Amino acid sequence: MPHPELPVSREGEIAVVTFNRPKVRNALDRAMWEALAEAMEGLSGDESLRSVVLRGTGGTFSAGADIRTFAEERGTRAREDRYAEVVHRGMQSIRLCRHPVVAAIEGACIGGGAGIATMCDFRVGGEGIRFGITARNLGIWYAYAEIDPILSLAGSGVAAELLIEGRIFNGREAYEKGLLSRVVPDGVVEQEGMALARRIAEGSPLSARFHKQAIRRLRGPLPVGPEEEAEANGFAETEDFRNAFRAFLTKEKPRFVGR
Amino acid sequence: MPHPELPVSREGEIAVVTFNRPKVRNALDRAMWEALAEAMEGLSGDESLRSVVLRGTGGTFSAGADIRTFAEERGTRAREDRYAEVVHRGMQSIRLCRHPVVAAIEGACIGGGAGIATMCDFRVGGEGIRFGITARNLGIWYAYAEIDPILSLAGSGVAAELLIEGRIFNGREAYEKGLLSRVVPDGVVEQEGMALARRIAEGSPLSARFHKQAIRRLRGPLPVGPEEEAEANGFAETEDFRNAFRAFLTKEKPRFVGR
Amino acid sequence: MPHPELPVSREGEIAVVTFNRPKVRNALDRAMWEALAEAMEGLSGDESLRSVVLRGTGGTFSAGADIRTFAEERGTRAREDRYAEVVHRGMQSIRLCRHPVVAAIEGACIGGGAGIATMCDFRVGGEGIRFGITARNLGIWYAYAEIDPILSLAGSGVAAELLIEGRIFNGREAYEKGLLSRVVPDGVVEQEGMALARRIAEGSPLSARFHKQAIRRLRGPLPVGPEEEAEANGFAETEDFRNAFRAFLTKEKPRFVGR
Repeated sequence: MPHPELPVSREGEIAVVTFNRPKVRNALDRAMWEALAEAMEGLSGDESLRSVVLRGTGGTFSAGADIRTFAEERGTRAREDRYAEVVHRGMQSIRLCRHPVVAAIEGACIGGGAGIATMCDFRVGGEGIRFGITARNLGIWYAYAEIDPILSLAGSGVAAELLIEGRIFNGREAYEKGLLSRVVPDGVVEQEGMALARRIAEGSPLSARFHKQAIRRLRGPLPVGPEEEAEANGFAETEDFRNAFRAFLTKEKPRFVGR
Repeated sequence: MPHPELPVSREGEIAVVTFNRPKVRNALDRAMWEALAEAMEGLSGDESLRSVVLRGTGGTFSAGADIRTFAEERGTRAREDRYAEVVHRGMQSIRLCRHPVVAAIEGACIGGGAGIATMCDFRVGGEGIRFGITARNLGIWYAYAEIDPILSLAGSGVAAELLIEGRIFNGREAYEKGLLSRVVPDGVVEQEGMALARRIAEGSPLSARFHKQAIRRLRGPLPVGPEEEAEANGFAETEDFRNAFRAFLTKEKPRFVGR
Repeated sequence: MPHPELPVSREGEIAVVTFNRPKVRNALDRAMWEALAEAMEGLSGDESLRSVVLRGTGGTFSAGADIRTFAEERGTRAREDRYAEVVHRGMQSIRLCRHPVVAAIEGACIGGGAGIATMCDFRVGGEGIRFGITARNLGIWYAYAEIDPILSLAGSGVAAELLIEGRIFNGREAYEKGLLSRVVPDGVVEQEGMALARRIAEGSPLSARFHKQAIRRLRGPLPVGPEEEAEANGFAETEDFRNAFRAFLTKEKPRFVGR
């Protein structure tokens, strides 16, 4: 059953999945993360498909997780553990999708939006995009499984810029850093993303599927155990996170004390 | 005993190995893959050497595996298993060569030619080269051991462009993607490749050898077992490969059905 | 107890560590490596800190290990084993420092200086810097633990250029190769390095610390055993090293024989 904020359409052998929540620049709440996982898992099982394009409405890709929903859906350790599972499933559904996935990126590609983009096999972005991860502003941190693809895509220095400095790259910079497969003028992002998906569709699907899983397979298993993985939700119990979340709601600048 | 299509010459402490089969843009048949392995293994054992340059005649590096020979040498599972062994030995003979190896790339560097280039320690290429992997057009896929150096060189995003999209890069793009050590005007490729080999030869050979093996060693063992490795020849048994091979011979566009 | 050649100052939540041995372009002798380890280990334990900047006096970062001190401090196997321990501790003290570390690079960033820079989380460099590793000129080789961060930062091709070719990059090239987080005009390096440290300091310190260790953690353990690690000091017993060291002292060009 499709979710109105995540419509899936079809153009020949290509599926197009759209983030459609323009009032919050396509930021995802829990229901949308679940819809993303269900959509991608369904598409993965569809043998007639050749590739999938992820895009956003309103000239923007996605502003990430919807922080305004934290008050109800997140913010305590128990809720974060459940939320992390849903995000994890959504993220992995892209990486594990049998078909190659193309992110067509306009406007904001921030936080979880950038995380989604790094899970894709290809990223076509406009010159004017804003690509970055803002977890540090809220005292949040990323799961190992979501950091790993950044390392395999662009190396440890770029990962530090994204995660620690919270640097926001434009399209040209993101290309130079290896975060975009290509950078194009802002007006032609969707057209170029679809053209790339069509080139993929022209090639052998068995070859594409083998190579997609081989690139993932050769990265090897994560060198962290389940306990370490669970640690990544520990932020919910820190004073810094609680203060920063309150500051976000009242539009103040957060003050961090390191606890 | 040298092979006429793979002559090896010597300039001081540098060996030059030439792909010399200009009628098919230096595409390799099985005998040439074997000659490559034997040449490189011999050079590796030669303590008086300091570096090796790989180049092609006729203004082109190599168009890869010679598809026209598939009818006799390849195309069934049993033949592919044998052929894969020969290619594997040729590829690894470059990677395992004790001396640093420089690819001097002009013109076409396609398929197995690009595979050979990514096995080298250095790649000097002209602006006008065509660098790409076309396996997807024939319903073929690469062995894990030949995909892994692409990942270690240029990351997962570039590997997807090469293997899944089948993108053909020019010299400037290949440099931006980390696939070339440097890009130079087309007329000076060999000269710059030899100059690089001479700079290597001026340094300590023990230092070069230690560092070459250390870069390889730190990549760690492949995280795939022998069964998975063998899987990569499975394409020979697919309907798609057989159809695409027939289409290649009759110069038609292949139609893939995913079986 | 601070070392006069490695003063540590403080600007708010940022510590600044300065290489201050201008007569040898801030090359490090054993005492300075020890001072670096002690300084960084002390700063790592300081909960009130948010980031650390490494810089050099006199418009230069560091010319690496001070070769002139080899005669007393290094050059035999037993001495090299002790020296390697000291260097290793200094190098790892940056990588293991709880706080993000920024290298502000002007002028020479050579040998151990470049090694130090690749241990940092961020590298801001001027257009006119000289970034490279000269071990090959002296018949020396690097420890696995110091090669590994180069691979994780910039891949195997760039590691070969640095370690095997001994290529010296300017700032623009080092940026293109992924060795610099950013390249800036020569006159504003320190200012830009401090600005980056201040941006880090504005974010959540717990988030920064988690992400720093996660990037390191996801690289996994080194795939080499202790015996192999010890091998890297074997150069001290070679004829080539002894000759090259003598040639350095008499300002002659070394001749290497591969023994």
